[in-house]
Amino acid sequence: MNVCVLTLFPDLFEPFWGHGIIRRAVEGQKLCPSTINIRDYAEGRHRVTDDRPYGGGCGMVMKPEPLTAALKAAQSQMPAAATLMLSPQGKRFDQPLAHSLALADALILICGRYEGVDERFVDQHVDAEISIGDFVLTGGELGAMVVIDAVVRLIPGVLGNRESAGNDTFSAGLVEHAHFTRPQTFGDEPVPDVLLSGNHHEIDRWRRQTALMRTVLKRPDLLAQRNFSPEERALLVKWRREIDQLLG
Amino acid sequence: MNVCVLTLFPDLFEPFWGHGIIRRAVEGQKLCPSTINIRDYAEGRHRVTDDRPYGGGCGMVMKPEPLTAALKAAQSQMPAAATLMLSPQGKRFDQPLAHSLALADALILICGRYEGVDERFVDQHVDAEISIGDFVLTGGELGAMVVIDAVVRLIPGVLGNRESAGNDTFSAGLVEHAHFTRPQTFGDEPVPDVLLSGNHHEIDRWRRQTALMRTVLKRPDLLAQRNFSPEERALLVKWRREIDQLLG
Repeated sequence: MNVCVLTLFPDLFEPFWGHGIIRRAVEGQKLCPSTINIRDYAEGRHRVTDDRPYGGGCGMVMKPEPLTAALKAAQSQMPAAATLMLSPQGKRFDQPLAHSLALADALILICGRYEGVDERFVDQHVDAEISIGDFVLTGGELGAMVVIDAVVRLIPGVLGNRESAGNDTFSAGLVEHAHFTRPQTFGDEPVPDVLLSGNHHEIDRWRRQTALMRTVLKRPDLLAQRNFSPEERALLVKWRREIDQLLG
Repeated sequence: MNVCVLTLFPDLFEPFWGHGIIRRAVEGQKLCPSTINIRDYAEGRHRVTDDRPYGGGCGMVMKPEPLTAALKAAQSQMPAAATLMLSPQGKRFDQPLAHSLALADALILICGRYEGVDERFVDQHVDAEISIGDFVLTGGELGAMVVIDAVVRLIPGVLGNRESAGNDTFSAGLVEHAHFTRPQTFGDEPVPDVLLSGNHHEIDRWRRQTALMRTVLKRPDLLAQRNFSPEERALLVKWRREIDQLLG
């Protein structure tokens, strides 16, 4: 996959390309990342990339011409790439969207800064706006890294045998079961007995149960649309009975 | 505000501390950021920070002792800090949570990696788990940066006069109005006339209208709980009438 990020701060991406999954994807030739500095495509001696908003008000707006020139440079290398812009008004990024983007051969990610981006650039050149959540960030750079990290680990062959994308939170519609490693007792708290039993059938059952329990407690919203399995339904009935008994 | 990040990859934060809002907050003595490398608190010659999961299965689990020792080191400098861990099972990070965290004097952010973190460390030492969204990332580092960026810009005095946190998307429960800057015509598309009129009353009204329209089109979910103003209600009635006419 070719990924090109248009940003005013390419430095921010240097350590990101060099760590963990991203580095491994680059080394395994699954990912070819690049950045384009939007400022390099601004005109004039001062290479100005922002200007005051028409209609007045505080904040500066990113000018459309440098963005367009930078995008054309990226597209000349990756003519079929989807052009995405990070924006708080965008479509919410989630695991299904990550799976869709992981099928692409090439992505161009545009990072806005300042108060916003001239609307005509967005109208004319952006295929989709993506938001990583309902919070306001200084720029699109962190959002771009989040999208790239979530997408790249879904490219076949990027995760090794020691990991697995399939077991992760959300892939099964539940949060993950609890994890335990050595020591066997930590701060007076022992590892649950079943995990030491060697009975893989029981261990799998315990993990499915705790995943459901943790989802009920921590993220009940994930269960609103769920088709419960017979086992899950039986567990929910059992827990309801236990709570009924506690309440008298 | 003191912010300390516990991570296996402190390098990832170096350019982040040095750019934009974060750098300005540091220079203005509003923010004192630091990182602690969890590996420095692991024992043995190899400073191992992860181990296989009890009960088997793929993936590695972060050991509780190095995390606890690293946390104690952070707490010795910041005894009153809230201890937050980035986790896909956590409370969803959003703008109201950013406003709450911006009131804190000190935050410790813990970044997990690998398949997960030993549950007993979370039970015993973490005040709250925070998630930036329903997607799976390789580690907590990008989430920590997102939280820090969103929070630091809300600390009084960090944003200058040229910006404003109050006008941003979500602060008013709507997405922002469209932005335009020079040139007056870009790609055959002119700036809306009203923004050139100099009539600030009309400009404000146009911006409120387009903010509402953009929210209806792009993020209708934000409007589900809204108490519409009389002006907004009148606009919605007008748009419904226009659509009715279009439909015949």
